[in-house]
Amino acid sequence: MMKLYYSPNSCSLASHIALEEAGADYEAVRLDFTKEDQKAADYLAINPKARVPSLITNQGVLSETPALLLFIAQSYPDAALAPLNDPFALAQAQAFNSYLCSSVHVAHAHLRRGHRWADDPVAIEAMRAKVPQSVGECFDLINNTMIKGPWVLGDHYSICDPYLFTLTGWLPGDGIDRADLPNVDAHYQRMSARAAVQKIVAIHAGT
Amino acid sequence: MMKLYYSPNSCSLASHIALEEAGADYEAVRLDFTKEDQKAADYLAINPKARVPSLITNQGVLSETPALLLFIAQSYPDAALAPLNDPFALAQAQAFNSYLCSSVHVAHAHLRRGHRWADDPVAIEAMRAKVPQSVGECFDLINNTMIKGPWVLGDHYSICDPYLFTLTGWLPGDGIDRADLPNVDAHYQRMSARAAVQKIVAIHAGT
Repeated sequence: MMKLYYSPNSCSLASHIALEEAGADYEAVRLDFTKEDQKAADYLAINPKARVPSLITNQGVLSETPALLLFIAQSYPDAALAPLNDPFALAQAQAFNSYLCSSVHVAHAHLRRGHRWADDPVAIEAMRAKVPQSVGECFDLINNTMIKGPWVLGDHYSICDPYLFTLTGWLPGDGIDRADLPNVDAHYQRMSARAAVQKIVAIHAGT
Repeated sequence: MMKLYYSPNSCSLASHIALEEAGADYEAVRLDFTKEDQKAADYLAINPKARVPSLITNQGVLSETPALLLFIAQSYPDAALAPLNDPFALAQAQAFNSYLCSSVHVAHAHLRRGHRWADDPVAIEAMRAKVPQSVGECFDLINNTMIKGPWVLGDHYSICDPYLFTLTGWLPGDGIDRADLPNVDAHYQRMSARAAVQKIVAIHAGT
């Protein structure tokens, strides 16, 4: 049985939803970042990056959301969560998820994790101030050029969808109104109607 | 024939080397970022993110380094550039490349691209000042925990190797001495001895 380490409403939500959608046999272990669980010695032994998600498999530990999502899709091919037999379509999925991790998540991270990139409190505040613009530009691009509809890749639900849903869920905190992004908003509502999503969102909302 | 858009010594170097290692039939098109070629209308029509790399294939355009690298590996399976038939090993490769794009490249980007995340010149200078530390911490982790040796994934050369080589090449500009990172340094020297790497590095060094 796989074991997913997550913290509520972090990017690990995407892998949590994907495991549920895949019908995987898994256990989810909650970390409390306010208590710095991710820096405890037993967790650092699992993931020396002190981040989530981590997925313990019977072959070893995996980290990084795009890697987990593809691994889940490959491990449960019957769930058809990625175009595994079409290298170009799979590369499009990977490009989307790579953009989320390297540009969109990063822009968002400047809201509360500015200390990663500067020490000066003035700088950290300047980073916070620009988040609505930097995240907003990313989501404009997603809204206008990346969602084929009804799902990210088109007709087929995939590992791109819970990842986009997760980052879309951060928009209110980023000072961005989802209503200004009609394709993103429609996608978020479509996701919110799925049973697996509702189940995992409720778990993350719980204490 | 595929067409790769690159700018010299940017992260597109990784895909350029991978295409060469794969024995692909490709054309490489140089963009000059000092002339803002990446913001020209004809390039934005190819890649609205105004970034490199972009790869034009006979099925359409791809972007994002981790996606290009996996696509190149899947398109030229005889070159054996990724463990395509082992989902766990492939996920490890994806996790490594995802870490490079979302953490290491991002830490480095605060040296010259701080304007993406703050407007205040004081903040941008504070970001520059922290690059040796933030990139250094990433490379300490890579040096100490991620390179199995002799290649990133162990005995087999893969798409992880040109990507690490590319980011290692940025270390002098980041204010980090490769000699303090023995595993990274040995990997860089091993890469530098490969004919395909020498050929592409010379192209990027040319004007």
